[in-house]
Amino acid sequence: MRISELSRRSGVSTATIKYYLREGLLPPGRATAATQAEYGESHVRRLRLIRALIGVRGLTVSAAKDVLDTISEGNSDTHELLGLVFGVWPAGGGKDEGGEEEDHSGVTALVSEMGWKVSEHNPARQVITQTLHTLRSLGMDYDWHDLVPYAELAEKTAVLDLDQLQGPDDPLEKAERAMLLTFLLEPALLALRRLAQEAESTIRHRG
Amino acid sequence: MRISELSRRSGVSTATIKYYLREGLLPPGRATAATQAEYGESHVRRLRLIRALIGVRGLTVSAAKDVLDTISEGNSDTHELLGLVFGVWPAGGGKDEGGEEEDHSGVTALVSEMGWKVSEHNPARQVITQTLHTLRSLGMDYDWHDLVPYAELAEKTAVLDLDQLQGPDDPLEKAERAMLLTFLLEPALLALRRLAQEAESTIRHRG
Repeated sequence: MRISELSRRSGVSTATIKYYLREGLLPPGRATAATQAEYGESHVRRLRLIRALIGVRGLTVSAAKDVLDTISEGNSDTHELLGLVFGVWPAGGGKDEGGEEEDHSGVTALVSEMGWKVSEHNPARQVITQTLHTLRSLGMDYDWHDLVPYAELAEKTAVLDLDQLQGPDDPLEKAERAMLLTFLLEPALLALRRLAQEAESTIRHRG
Repeated sequence: MRISELSRRSGVSTATIKYYLREGLLPPGRATAATQAEYGESHVRRLRLIRALIGVRGLTVSAAKDVLDTISEGNSDTHELLGLVFGVWPAGGGKDEGGEEEDHSGVTALVSEMGWKVSEHNPARQVITQTLHTLRSLGMDYDWHDLVPYAELAEKTAVLDLDQLQGPDDPLEKAERAMLLTFLLEPALLALRRLAQEAESTIRHRG
């Protein structure tokens, strides 16, 4: 297909497609004339993934390129792929944050209690530490033990999540699916909790 | 206590406390001299709640005042209180959004499948409609049926949430707790899902 068709199919403007071509995020099409090229389905899929990495996950163009390069190097190992896509480890070599000495003992205890094998670099650890810190700074008597029942439910959620990634073998497609289902579902999962809270409150207080 | 002590205890600056007093968010202290007043524990608690409504839930000062007024009118009905705090119904009378004709049939079907009794005005409905729309616009084959297992887990989460609100009888305290535990836990719940995804991926792909 021509670039105009690729733009229509992917929902990405031709100007942006040309920019991605220049930056090497998108491999060149098959040249059919001095100023024309032919693009295929793999370009459509790759554009979708680029859009998800930049638009949904909020990566910069250069970070998105690192992720894409690593995926494209024939890396179809699902575990590595998910780690890359979710930012468990940074693409293109570890640039450790370091510095800030924070007390992660709460998260460490929680992870150990759950028997989870997770990387020290998983940024989710930081989020949990921060939340526990904030709750305590607001005078709440709250620590990692209180999160254990929530962690058990998160475990069941993760099983549902990973079941939905069984399908596609193509690494680009799997990466796209993993990202969309993880990131785009986040607001919906929180919204389901709100609805369920109201439903539960109706049962308890209007039963 | 004096205003300086109130500031220290609540973590809110005296300038901000004076602003809240002027705007009527905080009731005046007991006058002890022409320019001095004595504040009590109820002021500390109310300041905390104001901070949560504005800082955590992101309400404007005037919307926070509406919520506080409604709570203070002796409204200690927990169901009403939670509805107010979570924004299920707007404080100070229904200002319906209306207008935008959107197709909420997916959410309606989901809510009915779950047997949930929830208000038509719960803003979480909109979030779910939007998510389903976005996933479909990105070419995913995804509808409300796919959310049912997640809704079942959300139901269990809501039971945990409401169990934690059994304690306090004071409506201000209950409102504060409901808000902190709902809004501040949100990033932590998503982070738990990420950690659990990595743990589950480790089991499946490195087992």
